[in-house]
Amino acid sequence: MVKDFIDTNDFTKEELLDMVDLGITMKKMIAAGEYPLLLEHKTLGMIFQQVSTRTRISFETAMTDLGGHAQFYGPGTIQLGGHESIEDSARVMGSLVDILMARVDRHKDVAELAKYSKAPVINGMSEYNHPTQELGDLMTMIENLPEGKKIEDCKLAFIGDATQVCVSLMFICSKMGMDFVQFGPKGHQISDGALHVGSAEEREAFGKKLMSIGEENCKVSGGTITISDDISSIEGADFIYTDVWYGLYDEEVSGESYMDVFFPKYQVTMDMMNYASPNSKFMHCLPASRGEEVVDEVMDDPKRSLCWDEAENRKHSIRAILATLCPQSDPTDSVVAPLRDNVDACMRKLGKQGVPAIR
Amino acid sequence: MVKDFIDTNDFTKEELLDMVDLGITMKKMIAAGEYPLLLEHKTLGMIFQQVSTRTRISFETAMTDLGGHAQFYGPGTIQLGGHESIEDSARVMGSLVDILMARVDRHKDVAELAKYSKAPVINGMSEYNHPTQELGDLMTMIENLPEGKKIEDCKLAFIGDATQVCVSLMFICSKMGMDFVQFGPKGHQISDGALHVGSAEEREAFGKKLMSIGEENCKVSGGTITISDDISSIEGADFIYTDVWYGLYDEEVSGESYMDVFFPKYQVTMDMMNYASPNSKFMHCLPASRGEEVVDEVMDDPKRSLCWDEAENRKHSIRAILATLCPQSDPTDSVVAPLRDNVDACMRKLGKQGVPAIR
Amino acid sequence: MVKDFIDTNDFTKEELLDMVDLGITMKKMIAAGEYPLLLEHKTLGMIFQQVSTRTRISFETAMTDLGGHAQFYGPGTIQLGGHESIEDSARVMGSLVDILMARVDRHKDVAELAKYSKAPVINGMSEYNHPTQELGDLMTMIENLPEGKKIEDCKLAFIGDATQVCVSLMFICSKMGMDFVQFGPKGHQISDGALHVGSAEEREAFGKKLMSIGEENCKVSGGTITISDDISSIEGADFIYTDVWYGLYDEEVSGESYMDVFFPKYQVTMDMMNYASPNSKFMHCLPASRGEEVVDEVMDDPKRSLCWDEAENRKHSIRAILATLCPQSDPTDSVVAPLRDNVDACMRKLGKQGVPAIR
Repeated sequence: MVKDFIDTNDFTKEELLDMVDLGITMKKMIAAGEYPLLLEHKTLGMIFQQVSTRTRISFETAMTDLGGHAQFYGPGTIQLGGHESIEDSARVMGSLVDILMARVDRHKDVAELAKYSKAPVINGMSEYNHPTQELGDLMTMIENLPEGKKIEDCKLAFIGDATQVCVSLMFICSKMGMDFVQFGPKGHQISDGALHVGSAEEREAFGKKLMSIGEENCKVSGGTITISDDISSIEGADFIYTDVWYGLYDEEVSGESYMDVFFPKYQVTMDMMNYASPNSKFMHCLPASRGEEVVDEVMDDPKRSLCWDEAENRKHSIRAILATLCPQSDPTDSVVAPLRDNVDACMRKLGKQGVPAIR
Repeated sequence: MVKDFIDTNDFTKEELLDMVDLGITMKKMIAAGEYPLLLEHKTLGMIFQQVSTRTRISFETAMTDLGGHAQFYGPGTIQLGGHESIEDSARVMGSLVDILMARVDRHKDVAELAKYSKAPVINGMSEYNHPTQELGDLMTMIENLPEGKKIEDCKLAFIGDATQVCVSLMFICSKMGMDFVQFGPKGHQISDGALHVGSAEEREAFGKKLMSIGEENCKVSGGTITISDDISSIEGADFIYTDVWYGLYDEEVSGESYMDVFFPKYQVTMDMMNYASPNSKFMHCLPASRGEEVVDEVMDDPKRSLCWDEAENRKHSIRAILATLCPQSDPTDSVVAPLRDNVDACMRKLGKQGVPAIR
Repeated sequence: MVKDFIDTNDFTKEELLDMVDLGITMKKMIAAGEYPLLLEHKTLGMIFQQVSTRTRISFETAMTDLGGHAQFYGPGTIQLGGHESIEDSARVMGSLVDILMARVDRHKDVAELAKYSKAPVINGMSEYNHPTQELGDLMTMIENLPEGKKIEDCKLAFIGDATQVCVSLMFICSKMGMDFVQFGPKGHQISDGALHVGSAEEREAFGKKLMSIGEENCKVSGGTITISDDISSIEGADFIYTDVWYGLYDEEVSGESYMDVFFPKYQVTMDMMNYASPNSKFMHCLPASRGEEVVDEVMDDPKRSLCWDEAENRKHSIRAILATLCPQSDPTDSVVAPLRDNVDACMRKLGKQGVPAIR
């Protein structure tokens, strides 16, 4: 298996499904009152170049649940590529913690961090993709499969702007062999380059690259990808997914009046939900702008809306990612015993109690 | 018992005294070298809309002492009621941690957080009250009762501005059946509306509401409440309490020259301490403005000043609140065992060690 | 032993070497898969008046490795000497955590913190010195002694500006009985007052004081100190150490064009390394300004450069400092047992599970 969790396309369908299985089982185990202490005393370093609620809390709680500890480096706390090169920072940080995660402004930064860090690196969202969200969403779909269907039989329709969450859903759905639809306006479609920053030509080239990744996945999995501004594309969808419309990742992209572009055609209403299918489920990565991309009636429907379970599943799926990637300890007593004795001797020389007296 | 710790008025006198007993016992237990691991692996989320020293450190240390872990969300880190509604944030955060605390700009925000969060919520101070300070102060008084007196026999005189700490002391003293006095200037009395923001009429109405809560408590407990600008009101006080005079909670309230209003009449001096009673004890929630509301001679008197014990007791009392309110795990081995086996199997499929090898 | 780790000059050579021995042994023990849980449930408070990467991560990871927990108070989070006096803050914080560390703008602040805090205080760098860096650097040299040499036989040459790291190296080298050289330009030499802020006279007096501390160490240890702008001073050095040139600690010191002052004479190149000795090792406290004080060829040489090991050793040496200074628990069961029973009884009264059911 690869060292880092930068992109779900680096993993096989089986590996990803095993992680989901692990995540669901640990979720049940903790609900039953016991914590799976797979990473006792291990340390996760969390680099956030942008403010985050769900991702930050999920990682920190997940690491604690596994017996480890998470360190939070907020925006402005640790520079990536300021005075010190990312390469140098990666070498140092990778030797001071057991595993790292980073939410970055630019995807190339988390990729470079992974390249030079000895410790595994998890991508906590970039302008390109959001792979931990993908795994959580896959878990949520698997827990809520329509009766008699397998995940391979399902159709997911993403409504609205080609955010990195939209692109990520294309990746994971095509990997699983599902039918993926983006129902969104021209200029805001994955094939237009999603949130990629650059000239019109660069964005178009980038859009082609994104599509080719999805199409390669489909060749292996048997899935399909449809990009359309025609509502009929969402017919038969089991899952209706949306994200905010102001999908500008940062100030580099100039704003436009997104209400003019998306409203009302791309607002998720109960009519749209029912048009897709009578039992379609609603998903949203949150936070939501209620009354813009989705109406309260859908979001708060206890039967149709999965968005709250989905938010909680961030924690449960991230726990599985951490357990899968973080190096574990495997002590051999014959090696450890004399070292423990020497720690003990040093402590006593320094006037303190040694290890055995404490344990 | 209620789910949240928003206001001590939601609890019975007996419940509050049991919490104090629990807090004092755990304080002794840790001093004797053993930690009461009542909340192993549990997670506390701490939301701070304002900077804090005592409250933040106390919560974080207390949670660690109990075997759990605290996450710190500093000002600007997590928005409450910005782009996302408080209701939505509460639902999500309440599903990602086991218990929450919040120090908020506005009391209605912590109340709303509690309403929508599945996890219990503790009020870490609002412009209205400071209930965790109340419990710590009650603990400090109980540990320092005048000889031969019970808590019900004691008199506490608060000197100065009707801050939220002053209002909170009125709540807890009246709940306990003590004699409570606020000795402060007209316009800065609890009955004038304390730190409530609004028109003169609104503040007056609010002051009446505050007084009626205290009076209701007195009917049950036999306590008394006196609000006065006459120094004779503090005669016989066992505890003299003060707080800073610039009790403006935020920029919304226009400033006035508080020295003109309070100095020198309401400064706690050794003369005032002795006027109250020869063995009266000094209390302060800290931080203090030395030379304004209190002189060094009082604050640093090793026999008369309790303010340092009081600060440390924040930790000991908050530990009891956390232990009382945070949900605990209660594993049943027959349920857990097969789940542990499946975690083990998943981990091995992913090329890692399972739970048993680690434990 | 003294309570605090403010200055290595407060410790004997033997104490410091015992800490290094402890640190190296614990490093091996953790590499072998077992954590030395010497500080279970203990809390470290970390005060950072300035942003930090290496020091912050090292302390937090080290405390976790020992079974404890570290709290991070970033710049602006906790005021030292603002509205509240440092003395008052020290008293309160020292009663809420078990041990404190502080990276401060001014050395007198960490000294005052130590004076009034009940809990031990570790100096995480000031404008005067950087003692935890010293211990890590000593560990790195001891792990990389030239064949057949003891630490007392070694020579370290510091190249460039008299930063606090340079001063600290003079302290630890002279304490150990090594030969210490600062090869740097006049006006930027330790004897000129290092980073001390003040008039020319004050800086000169301060420089004399620094030198006299080093000279006192040499009298005891047999070491030597040389300050020179002549390259021949570095001949025979086993360790070549440098630091950034913009060694201005803060805005109070007016800038000057440091490239004009230091470049190219004081840039560490492979020629300079070889001039010192054919097997000399390179050290740097990091972060480095590549191409200024050192060239890539030296920094990235896998045989000659120790700077990455040195960075990782921050964690390993700080672990030893924490283990040595933090108070440990030593429970007596006859004292603890009745307290545990009372915690249990209180919890049951409050409708919760007690300690035994949980453990």
